[in-house]
Amino acid sequence: MATAGKVIKCKAAVAWEPNKPLVMEEIEVAPPKANEVRIKIVATAVCHTDLYHLFESMHKDGFPAVLGHEGAGIVESVGPGVTEFKTGDKVIPLFISQCRECRFCKSPKTNQCEKGWAARHYDAMSVEDSRFTCKGKKVLQFMGTSTFSEYTVVNQVAVAKIDPAAPLDKVCLLGCAISTGYGAAVNTAKVEPDSTCAVFGLGAVGLAAVMGCKAAGAKRIIAVDINPEKAEKAKVFGATDFVNPKDHSKPISQVLSEMTDGGVDFSLECVGNVGVMRNALESCVKGWGVSVVVGWTDLYDFAARPIQLIAGRTWKGSLFGGFKSKDGVPQMVKGYLDKKVKLDEFITHNMTLAQVNDAIELMKQGKCIRTVLSVSPQ
Amino acid sequence: MATAGKVIKCKAAVAWEPNKPLVMEEIEVAPPKANEVRIKIVATAVCHTDLYHLFESMHKDGFPAVLGHEGAGIVESVGPGVTEFKTGDKVIPLFISQCRECRFCKSPKTNQCEKGWAARHYDAMSVEDSRFTCKGKKVLQFMGTSTFSEYTVVNQVAVAKIDPAAPLDKVCLLGCAISTGYGAAVNTAKVEPDSTCAVFGLGAVGLAAVMGCKAAGAKRIIAVDINPEKAEKAKVFGATDFVNPKDHSKPISQVLSEMTDGGVDFSLECVGNVGVMRNALESCVKGWGVSVVVGWTDLYDFAARPIQLIAGRTWKGSLFGGFKSKDGVPQMVKGYLDKKVKLDEFITHNMTLAQVNDAIELMKQGKCIRTVLSVSPQ
Repeated sequence: MATAGKVIKCKAAVAWEPNKPLVMEEIEVAPPKANEVRIKIVATAVCHTDLYHLFESMHKDGFPAVLGHEGAGIVESVGPGVTEFKTGDKVIPLFISQCRECRFCKSPKTNQCEKGWAARHYDAMSVEDSRFTCKGKKVLQFMGTSTFSEYTVVNQVAVAKIDPAAPLDKVCLLGCAISTGYGAAVNTAKVEPDSTCAVFGLGAVGLAAVMGCKAAGAKRIIAVDINPEKAEKAKVFGATDFVNPKDHSKPISQVLSEMTDGGVDFSLECVGNVGVMRNALESCVKGWGVSVVVGWTDLYDFAARPIQLIAGRTWKGSLFGGFKSKDGVPQMVKGYLDKKVKLDEFITHNMTLAQVNDAIELMKQGKCIRTVLSVSPQ
Repeated sequence: MATAGKVIKCKAAVAWEPNKPLVMEEIEVAPPKANEVRIKIVATAVCHTDLYHLFESMHKDGFPAVLGHEGAGIVESVGPGVTEFKTGDKVIPLFISQCRECRFCKSPKTNQCEKGWAARHYDAMSVEDSRFTCKGKKVLQFMGTSTFSEYTVVNQVAVAKIDPAAPLDKVCLLGCAISTGYGAAVNTAKVEPDSTCAVFGLGAVGLAAVMGCKAAGAKRIIAVDINPEKAEKAKVFGATDFVNPKDHSKPISQVLSEMTDGGVDFSLECVGNVGVMRNALESCVKGWGVSVVVGWTDLYDFAARPIQLIAGRTWKGSLFGGFKSKDGVPQMVKGYLDKKVKLDEFITHNMTLAQVNDAIELMKQGKCIRTVLSVSPQ
């Protein structure tokens, strides 16, 4: 490529400070250093975690940054020592790495690679060591990815090579929400055939969790959301029931307990709300109920009564659906190409990167499931 | 027996009201009804849960009652329909039943039988439908057992028949603490060979958890207690390290993390304190750490940050060590007779039932591990 080894000037949406609209800027993207891959981002979606950083956590050390972590693109060039990727490869940048060498990567029990930004920077959620500058200032890399930019640079341990046949404006969703929700059901909860499940929160993560429960063979999948408009969408992904907590005067856990003779076998919290986390645990049947925290928040503690655990429930959490990222994402892409994993049905809006603030506004208002932004021409 | 079918007048320690000494009284024990077994209690120990009921929860519906739930005895007579037991059998009354018929008993995943008192009365912890009267008043049956009495009546789903060779003044401990702690490590945490474990709280339950970790093949067992006198005792059961949180200015989770390169694989909370529950979770390694709540309390919520679960930790609870009670207790008795399970080492004091208040005082002051009370001559 003519650009290899050179600084690339390109467009990116910069979050200069918390709680303000993103600003389209020309940024400079340095060439990849050793073990790094520079990626032309073709498509990205907006995820609630971007909004969480911008409007909720607002961690002072996390700005200015380029947000976006649910994208897909094409390798532009690679730095020294990179043999796994070459110019032109279709890839998905990963906010959770898989180095294949640390004790976590070597264990079949976890996907929490020690090499990723999350092992060091989860408070700020933005990595200082980025290749971005704008107007002479260093710009941080959100979750190690920064897909709201025409180009980004990612360590090769955090890039998944995917099938060249994959449409990037669809599979970008596998960079976060869909893998997160689907995997939380299949890998973390380990939903069993003929089981009863409840999924709390029907954004993209929750709908993907519904899809995961169905793929795992659950016989009953109760979708829970305070927005009645989510009911129809949930059925598309396999929900058998829809419950709106606002339709009931009883606590939602009691409603679900009565519907299921004592509670569900598996529950998944896909909101990121500590009150809902508690509801999800309390909605599980005693003895063997498993509740998984999938939604992200780090603002408050979650809580419950000890008897809820002592009575035999298990409380777990899931990050990126428990998928070892470099292994899992290509498998999910294959699942999509084989028509076993739905993606198109999550996409309610298509826009361009320049419209990112409109896409954020849609998500804030709960008017979209996923908005895919086209970033660079392919 | 000459007493079969008749009311038995015998001695029992009655808890007339919360926060008061027990009173030795003559009580009347009615004959067993259908499916019930009347047991002559030979020995009982005092457990912290008796104290919890008397001094902490003080649930108004739980009195007057006969406390005690860690006992062993001999079948005096059986009610209609009882074929599994006969007069003279050595037995241990069980505070958690195993009916073998409910969906929980039929599942290999849980020991939470639906037929027990706990399924209905865990708030009050005392069962109204007892066979006890004293001075014309009905006296409740604590945890369905009431071993602080020369005789008690228990449904056959909550009685374990044990090896006739078993010394009742030792195996009585298997009615609660030792099975609870040992099983929490082996059955609930499923401690793995060569793993690193931490046990918080070194009462009988915690020491039994240490023993369970060792039996499961843990290579490092860190015993944690604020009482330095527990260090030596912990080694007897297999602890490799002892940490007193009072010796450190850092949080205990940080101390353990530094000792173990990021946290232990398994932690067991054997105190019944929600702050310690949180410490135990936070002391686990991310990725695969499993923390088990073993200690009992129902006075406060436990809490933690969502990231603790999302980072790959699992929070579980254990009741009676996850043992299906009628199956598990005879196995533990066999373990003792085969010298694979220690019991004698837990017994620091021997007294009589009439001295029960002294035994309670010893436990309140942390001066005993277990006091065994002789109740009836064998």
